[in-house]
Amino acid sequence: MPKTTVKRSPQKARTDVSIRDAILDAALVAHVGFVDEGQPYVMPLAFVRDGERLLVHGSSASRAMKVLATGAPACATVTILDALVVARSQFESSMHYRGVSVMGSFEMLESEAKAAALAVLGEKLIPATGARSTAPQESKATAVLALPLDVWSAKVSDGPVDDAPEDEATARWAGIIPLHHTWGEAQDAEDLPEGTTRPDAAIQAWTQRGLA
Amino acid sequence: MPKTTVKRSPQKARTDVSIRDAILDAALVAHVGFVDEGQPYVMPLAFVRDGERLLVHGSSASRAMKVLATGAPACATVTILDALVVARSQFESSMHYRGVSVMGSFEMLESEAKAAALAVLGEKLIPATGARSTAPQESKATAVLALPLDVWSAKVSDGPVDDAPEDEATARWAGIIPLHHTWGEAQDAEDLPEGTTRPDAAIQAWTQRGLA
Repeated sequence: MPKTTVKRSPQKARTDVSIRDAILDAALVAHVGFVDEGQPYVMPLAFVRDGERLLVHGSSASRAMKVLATGAPACATVTILDALVVARSQFESSMHYRGVSVMGSFEMLESEAKAAALAVLGEKLIPATGARSTAPQESKATAVLALPLDVWSAKVSDGPVDDAPEDEATARWAGIIPLHHTWGEAQDAEDLPEGTTRPDAAIQAWTQRGLA
Repeated sequence: MPKTTVKRSPQKARTDVSIRDAILDAALVAHVGFVDEGQPYVMPLAFVRDGERLLVHGSSASRAMKVLATGAPACATVTILDALVVARSQFESSMHYRGVSVMGSFEMLESEAKAAALAVLGEKLIPATGARSTAPQESKATAVLALPLDVWSAKVSDGPVDDAPEDEATARWAGIIPLHHTWGEAQDAEDLPEGTTRPDAAIQAWTQRGLA
């Protein structure tokens, strides 16, 4: 159950954990907000959901990682835009989207917990192409942080065009323009040694995830 | 010129205003961060660039609009995800993206400035289908806020896969999987009066914008 209440457009609120997880699992990037010396910052960070937590990683030297590692209050928001809703009035025009916000404090992971989280990040963020896992000196340069899914809200806007009756009676057009997020064909890196084959099955399995 | 310095991956920083504007004009949603009672929040808000400012709007009763209207410090971040970069190592795997962050304080717009901004929002956020413009009582329920493009940074990640030489020598696959954001065919609302025609030219002109 979410621990925050959606106040605006409460009919769009979703309290079902499976809906929350479907949104989180379809996305690759969360916009993470934190405050440094009174100034809020919003950084796009690659993330994965690992059970009841979100995992992010980044350079240990970055401001975002340094601030988040202190356990400072944070907010991670994930938004997938699905369509433009064109109403007969500008006022009722809107968008279809799916979104989750998670509030709380990140925890910096160390030693075994960090190695395990890096493995989960590697597994979920990229296709199973056999990429070399993180080496000790690479791990040292990387901060890995976890945000528990304790306080969250989810919203889904997917309804029909909703105009006032006097607008509906007019001959103006109204409708929905869907927005699709699709993976294109994988392109080989330029410097692949001859004979390197593209692991199409692994790439296809990965790109069948939701998106994006 | 941007007034902030990109410290992480400085080779990805872009100081050219035309690149900044191209990113902002291609996107529809900004993730706006602000602080309320010590807790940062990140809200996805539809936005447009209007010259040297960003415009957003929302319900006057929403927490985001109430806090932002006070001129509290804010950050608006726009991110367009373009590809997954699969390296031979998990460590060098990354994403292609274009992003802009704007720091500063929103100003609440009133009377003529508000009406003009609502017109710009209506023009840029939806196709020119002839939707009815905002009525006075609708405007009253709507807060319209402007964020000047004074302090900003832009980043573009679009380079080739970059692996360490010892990884490049291996037979592991590496490459780039592009992510496309495309508008599908517009769907008529269910309750259109007979004889209402879809303004295909207006819709097509709008969907040729960048994206998304």
